[in-house]
Amino acid sequence: MSTDPSKYVFNHTMIRVKDPKATLAFYENVLGMKLITKLDNDAGKFTLYFLAYADSIPDTEEEKKKFAFSRPGVLELTHNWGTENDADFAYANGNKEPGRGFGHIAVLVDDIQAACDRFEELKVNFVKRLTDGKMKNIAFLSDPDGYWVEIIQNPLVSGAAPV
Amino acid sequence: MSTDPSKYVFNHTMIRVKDPKATLAFYENVLGMKLITKLDNDAGKFTLYFLAYADSIPDTEEEKKKFAFSRPGVLELTHNWGTENDADFAYANGNKEPGRGFGHIAVLVDDIQAACDRFEELKVNFVKRLTDGKMKNIAFLSDPDGYWVEIIQNPLVSGAAPV
Repeated sequence: MSTDPSKYVFNHTMIRVKDPKATLAFYENVLGMKLITKLDNDAGKFTLYFLAYADSIPDTEEEKKKFAFSRPGVLELTHNWGTENDADFAYANGNKEPGRGFGHIAVLVDDIQAACDRFEELKVNFVKRLTDGKMKNIAFLSDPDGYWVEIIQNPLVSGAAPV
Repeated sequence: MSTDPSKYVFNHTMIRVKDPKATLAFYENVLGMKLITKLDNDAGKFTLYFLAYADSIPDTEEEKKKFAFSRPGVLELTHNWGTENDADFAYANGNKEPGRGFGHIAVLVDDIQAACDRFEELKVNFVKRLTDGKMKNIAFLSDPDGYWVEIIQNPLVSGAAPV
Protein backbone atom coordinates (compact mmCIF):
# COMPACT_ATOMS: atom_id res chain seq x y z
CA MET A 1 0.00 0.00 0.00
CA SER A 2 1.32 3.43 -0.85
CA THR A 3 1.16 5.07 2.52
CA ASP A 4 4.11 5.98 4.74
CA PRO A 5 3.00 6.72 8.32
CA SER A 6 6.31 8.44 9.13
CA LYS A 7 5.25 11.18 6.67
CA TYR A 8 1.99 11.89 8.48
CA VAL A 9 1.53 15.27 10.23
CA PHE A 10 0.01 15.94 13.66
CA ASN A 11 -2.15 18.77 12.36
CA HIS A 12 -4.58 19.99 15.00
CA THR A 13 -6.19 19.64 18.40
CA MET A 14 -9.91 20.31 18.76
CA ILE A 15 -11.64 21.64 21.85
CA ARG A 16 -15.27 22.70 22.21
CA VAL A 17 -15.82 26.25 23.41
CA LYS A 18 -18.87 27.91 24.93
CA ASP A 19 -18.37 31.49 23.71
CA PRO A 20 -16.11 31.99 20.68
CA LYS A 21 -15.89 35.74 21.22
CA ALA A 22 -14.20 35.24 24.60
CA THR A 23 -12.08 32.33 23.37
CA LEU A 24 -10.86 34.12 20.23
CA ALA A 25 -9.94 37.17 22.31
CA PHE A 26 -7.86 34.90 24.53
CA TYR A 27 -6.02 32.93 21.83
CA GLU A 28 -5.58 35.89 19.46
CA ASN A 29 -4.99 38.86 21.75
CA VAL A 30 -3.46 37.23 24.82
CA LEU A 31 -1.61 34.29 23.24
CA GLY A 32 -0.84 35.78 19.82
CA MET A 33 -2.35 33.15 17.53
CA LYS A 34 -3.94 34.13 14.22
CA LEU A 35 -7.36 33.03 12.99
CA ILE A 36 -6.79 31.19 9.73
CA THR A 37 -10.40 30.58 8.79
CA LYS A 38 -13.81 29.72 10.17
CA LEU A 39 -16.31 27.28 8.73
CA ASP A 40 -20.01 27.63 9.45
CA ASN A 41 -22.19 24.53 9.37
CA ASP A 42 -25.79 25.71 9.15
CA ALA A 43 -27.28 22.21 9.17
CA GLY A 44 -25.36 21.17 12.27
CA LYS A 45 -25.65 24.64 13.88
CA PHE A 46 -21.96 24.88 14.68
CA THR A 47 -18.92 26.87 13.59
CA LEU A 48 -15.32 25.68 13.45
CA TYR A 49 -12.47 28.14 14.00
CA PHE A 50 -8.88 27.27 13.01
CA LEU A 51 -6.02 29.18 14.65
CA ALA A 52 -2.24 28.91 14.44
CA TYR A 53 0.94 30.87 14.91
CA ALA A 54 1.83 32.29 11.53
CA ASP A 55 3.48 35.40 10.12
CA SER A 56 0.68 35.85 7.61
CA ILE A 57 -2.51 34.16 6.50
CA PRO A 58 -3.32 33.49 2.81
CA ASP A 59 -5.98 35.62 1.11
CA THR A 60 -8.28 33.16 -0.62
CA GLU A 61 -10.58 30.72 1.13
CA GLU A 62 -9.09 27.76 -0.74
CA GLU A 63 -5.55 28.74 0.25
CA LYS A 64 -6.67 29.30 3.86
CA LYS A 65 -8.05 25.77 4.02
CA LYS A 66 -4.88 24.30 2.54
CA PHE A 67 -2.90 26.31 5.08
CA ALA A 68 -5.03 25.09 8.01
CA PHE A 69 -4.92 21.45 6.89
CA SER A 70 -1.26 21.04 6.02
CA ARG A 71 0.75 22.15 9.05
CA PRO A 72 1.32 21.10 12.65
CA GLY A 73 0.32 23.31 15.57
CA VAL A 74 -3.25 24.21 14.60
CA LEU A 75 -5.93 24.75 17.25
CA GLU A 76 -9.51 23.98 16.20
CA LEU A 77 -12.35 25.45 18.24
CA THR A 78 -15.85 24.04 17.87
CA HIS A 79 -18.73 26.32 18.80
CA ASN A 80 -22.16 24.75 19.05
CA TRP A 81 -24.46 27.71 18.52
CA GLY A 82 -26.32 29.02 21.54
CA THR A 83 -24.14 27.67 24.34
CA GLU A 84 -22.90 31.20 24.98
CA ASN A 85 -26.40 32.26 26.03
CA ASP A 86 -26.87 29.50 28.63
CA ALA A 87 -25.53 30.72 31.96
CA ASP A 88 -25.37 27.18 33.34
CA PHE A 89 -23.55 25.66 30.37
CA ALA A 90 -19.93 24.60 30.81
CA TYR A 91 -17.55 22.15 29.16
CA ALA A 92 -15.29 19.84 31.18
CA ASN A 93 -11.63 20.82 31.06
CA GLY A 94 -10.43 17.23 31.41
CA ASN A 95 -8.55 17.76 34.65
CA LYS A 96 -11.11 16.73 37.22
CA GLU A 97 -13.70 14.02 37.72
CA PRO A 98 -16.04 13.37 36.08
CA GLY A 99 -14.35 13.75 32.76
CA ARG A 100 -10.66 13.40 33.55
CA GLY A 101 -8.57 12.60 30.47
CA PHE A 102 -7.39 15.50 28.34
CA GLY A 103 -4.81 17.56 30.18
CA HIS A 104 -3.73 20.76 28.46
CA ILE A 105 -2.19 22.42 25.48
CA ALA A 106 1.25 24.03 25.83
CA VAL A 107 2.62 27.23 24.37
CA LEU A 108 6.31 28.10 24.17
CA VAL A 109 7.15 31.73 24.88
CA ASP A 110 10.18 33.87 24.10
CA ASP A 111 10.70 35.21 27.64
CA ILE A 112 8.68 33.42 30.29
CA GLN A 113 9.00 36.09 32.98
CA ALA A 114 8.00 38.90 30.63
CA ALA A 115 5.19 36.76 29.21
CA CYS A 116 3.79 36.00 32.67
CA ASP A 117 4.11 39.64 33.74
CA ARG A 118 2.04 40.58 30.69
CA PHE A 119 -0.57 37.89 31.47
CA GLU A 120 -0.88 39.41 34.98
CA GLU A 121 -1.39 42.87 33.50
CA LEU A 122 -4.05 41.47 31.19
CA LYS A 123 -5.79 39.87 34.23
CA VAL A 124 -5.51 36.37 32.77
CA ASN A 125 -6.52 33.54 35.12
CA PHE A 126 -3.59 31.48 36.34
CA VAL A 127 -3.92 27.84 37.40
CA LYS A 128 -0.28 27.95 38.51
CA ARG A 129 2.05 30.95 38.62
CA LEU A 130 5.80 30.55 38.15
CA THR A 131 6.17 31.04 41.90
CA ASP A 132 3.61 28.34 42.83
CA GLY A 133 4.62 24.73 43.58
CA LYS A 134 7.92 23.05 42.94
CA MET A 135 8.33 23.71 39.22
CA LYS A 136 9.36 27.37 39.08
CA ASN A 137 9.95 27.30 35.33
CA ILE A 138 6.44 26.61 34.08
CA ALA A 139 3.09 28.34 34.51
CA PHE A 140 -0.46 27.28 33.70
CA LEU A 141 -3.19 29.63 32.49
CA SER A 142 -6.91 28.91 32.35
CA ASP A 143 -8.65 29.81 29.10
CA PRO A 144 -12.24 31.15 29.03
CA ASP A 145 -13.67 27.59 29.20
CA GLY A 146 -11.27 26.55 31.93
CA TYR A 147 -8.96 24.53 29.65
CA TRP A 148 -5.39 24.63 30.91
CA VAL A 149 -2.64 26.23 28.82
CA GLU A 150 0.90 25.44 29.93
CA ILE A 151 3.43 28.23 29.42
CA ILE A 152 7.02 27.09 28.79
CA GLN A 153 10.22 28.93 27.95
CA ASN A 154 11.26 28.19 24.35
CA PRO A 155 14.78 26.71 24.71
CA LEU A 156 15.71 27.91 21.22
CA VAL A 157 15.31 31.46 22.52
CA SER A 158 16.79 31.07 26.00
CA GLY A 159 19.25 28.28 25.19
CA ALA A 160 18.14 26.04 28.05
CA ALA A 161 15.70 23.13 28.06
CA PRO A 162 12.81 23.79 30.48
CA VAL A 163 13.11 20.46 32.31
CA MET B 1 8.06 44.22 28.17
CA SER B 2 10.19 42.16 25.86
CA THR B 3 7.76 39.51 24.83
CA ASP B 4 6.14 39.13 21.41
CA PRO B 5 3.12 36.78 21.53
CA SER B 6 3.13 36.36 17.75
CA LYS B 7 6.45 34.50 18.17
CA TYR B 8 5.03 31.95 20.58
CA VAL B 9 4.75 28.30 19.49
CA PHE B 10 1.85 25.89 20.04
CA ASN B 11 4.12 23.11 21.23
CA HIS B 12 2.14 20.17 22.56
CA THR B 13 -1.14 18.59 23.55
CA MET B 14 -1.28 16.42 26.66
CA ILE B 15 -3.62 13.49 27.23
CA ARG B 16 -3.59 11.03 30.12
CA VAL B 17 -3.29 7.37 29.13
CA LYS B 18 -4.08 4.20 31.07
CA ASP B 19 -1.52 1.83 29.53
CA PRO B 20 1.49 3.40 27.81
CA LYS B 21 2.50 0.13 26.18
CA ALA B 22 -0.75 0.01 24.21
CA THR B 23 -0.75 3.74 23.52
CA LEU B 24 2.86 3.85 22.32
CA ALA B 25 2.20 0.89 20.01
CA PHE B 26 -0.71 2.85 18.53
CA TYR B 27 1.02 6.21 18.03
CA GLU B 28 4.38 4.75 16.98
CA ASN B 29 3.49 1.65 14.97
CA VAL B 30 0.05 2.53 13.61
CA LEU B 31 0.35 6.32 13.25
CA GLY B 32 4.11 6.59 12.62
CA MET B 33 5.13 9.05 15.34
CA LYS B 34 8.51 8.78 17.03
CA LEU B 35 9.13 8.76 20.78
CA ILE B 36 11.39 11.72 21.49
CA THR B 37 11.94 11.13 25.19
CA LYS B 38 10.26 10.00 28.38
CA LEU B 39 10.56 11.57 31.79
CA ASP B 40 9.96 9.55 34.93
CA ASN B 41 8.77 11.33 38.04
CA ASP B 42 9.37 8.97 40.97
CA ALA B 43 7.93 11.32 43.59
CA GLY B 44 4.71 11.85 41.64
CA LYS B 45 4.60 8.23 40.40
CA PHE B 46 4.04 9.21 36.79
CA THR B 47 5.89 9.14 33.48
CA LEU B 48 5.62 11.63 30.62
CA TYR B 49 6.16 10.50 27.04
CA PHE B 50 6.78 13.01 24.24
CA LEU B 51 6.10 11.96 20.64
CA ALA B 52 6.27 13.76 17.31
CA TYR B 53 6.67 13.22 13.61
CA ALA B 54 10.36 13.59 12.87
CA ASP B 55 12.94 12.13 10.48
CA SER B 56 15.35 11.53 13.34
CA ILE B 57 15.63 12.08 17.08
CA PRO B 58 18.73 13.64 18.70
CA ASP B 59 21.08 11.39 20.69
CA THR B 60 21.66 13.17 23.97
CA GLU B 61 19.02 13.68 26.65
CA GLU B 62 19.59 17.45 26.67
CA GLU B 63 19.12 17.68 22.91
CA LYS B 64 16.04 15.47 23.08
CA LYS B 65 14.45 17.83 25.60
CA LYS B 66 15.29 20.86 23.48
CA PHE B 67 13.80 19.05 20.49
CA ALA B 68 10.59 18.19 22.37
CA PHE B 69 10.15 21.70 23.77
CA SER B 70 10.87 23.81 20.71
CA ARG B 71 8.56 22.58 17.95
CA PRO B 72 4.86 22.42 17.17
CA GLY B 73 3.04 19.10 16.77
CA VAL B 74 4.22 17.27 19.89
CA LEU B 75 1.96 14.80 21.69
CA GLU B 76 2.54 14.40 25.43
CA LEU B 77 1.20 11.28 27.14
CA THR B 78 0.91 11.22 30.93
CA HIS B 79 0.90 7.81 32.58
CA ASN B 80 -0.02 7.67 36.24
CA TRP B 81 1.62 4.45 37.38
CA GLY B 82 -0.66 1.51 38.07
CA THR B 83 -3.74 2.52 36.08
CA GLU B 84 -2.89 -0.20 33.54
CA ASN B 85 -3.50 -2.86 36.21
CA ASP B 86 -6.97 -1.65 37.16
CA ALA B 87 -9.54 -3.35 34.92
CA ASP B 88 -12.21 -0.78 35.81
CA PHE B 89 -10.06 2.29 35.21
CA ALA B 90 -10.81 4.46 32.19
CA TYR B 91 -10.22 8.07 31.17
CA ALA B 92 -12.95 10.20 29.58
CA ASN B 93 -12.38 10.89 25.89
CA GLY B 94 -14.12 14.26 26.01
CA ASN B 95 -16.85 13.39 23.52
CA LYS B 96 -19.67 12.32 25.79
CA GLU B 97 -21.25 13.38 29.06
CA PRO B 98 -20.06 13.60 31.71
CA GLY B 99 -16.83 15.16 30.63
CA ARG B 100 -17.63 16.63 27.22
CA GLY B 101 -15.07 19.25 26.14
CA PHE B 102 -11.93 18.04 24.40
CA GLY B 103 -12.76 16.66 20.96
CA HIS B 104 -9.87 15.02 19.13
CA ILE B 105 -6.45 15.30 17.64
CA ALA B 106 -6.07 15.19 13.86
CA VAL B 107 -3.42 13.56 11.71
CA LEU B 108 -2.81 14.37 8.04
CA VAL B 109 -2.00 11.40 5.85
CA ASP B 110 -0.36 11.08 2.44
CA ASP B 111 -3.07 8.87 0.87
CA ILE B 112 -6.26 8.63 2.89
CA GLN B 113 -7.64 5.53 1.15
CA ALA B 114 -4.38 3.60 1.49
CA ALA B 115 -4.00 4.80 5.08
CA CYS B 116 -7.51 3.65 6.02
CA ASP B 117 -7.02 0.32 4.23
CA ARG B 118 -3.89 -0.21 6.34
CA PHE B 119 -5.74 0.74 9.56
CA GLU B 120 -8.34 -1.91 8.68
CA GLU B 121 -5.62 -4.52 8.16
CA LEU B 122 -4.12 -3.56 11.51
CA LYS B 123 -7.56 -4.00 13.16
CA VAL B 124 -7.63 -0.41 14.40
CA ASN B 125 -10.92 0.73 15.92
CA PHE B 126 -12.80 3.20 13.77
CA VAL B 127 -15.24 5.76 15.18
CA LYS B 128 -16.14 6.71 11.60
CA ARG B 129 -15.01 5.09 8.40
CA LEU B 130 -14.65 7.08 5.16
CA THR B 131 -17.88 5.47 4.00
CA ASP B 132 -19.87 6.41 7.16
CA GLY B 133 -21.99 9.55 7.39
CA LYS B 134 -22.01 12.54 5.08
CA MET B 135 -18.32 13.47 5.12
CA LYS B 136 -16.72 10.86 2.89
CA ASN B 137 -13.28 12.49 3.03
CA ILE B 138 -12.49 12.12 6.73
CA ALA B 139 -12.26 9.18 9.10
CA PHE B 140 -12.01 8.95 12.87
CA LEU B 141 -10.02 6.31 14.75
CA SER B 142 -10.25 5.48 18.42
CA ASP B 143 -6.93 5.19 20.28
CA PRO B 144 -6.43 2.64 23.10
CA ASP B 145 -8.01 5.01 25.66
CA GLY B 146 -10.89 5.87 23.35
CA TYR B 147 -9.55 9.31 22.37
CA TRP B 148 -10.61 10.21 18.84
CA VAL B 149 -8.00 10.71 16.10
CA GLU B 150 -9.26 12.40 12.95
CA ILE B 151 -7.64 11.23 9.72
CA ILE B 152 -7.44 13.84 6.95
CA GLN B 153 -5.88 13.88 3.51
CA ASN B 154 -2.85 16.21 3.44
CA PRO B 155 -3.68 18.72 0.67
CA LEU B 156 0.03 19.33 0.02
CA VAL B 157 0.25 15.72 -1.12
CA SER B 158 -3.08 15.39 -2.96
CA GLY B 159 -3.38 19.00 -4.10
CA ALA B 160 -6.93 19.42 -2.79
CA ALA B 161 -8.14 20.89 0.49
CA PRO B 162 -10.14 18.32 2.48
CA VAL B 163 -13.16 20.55 3.08
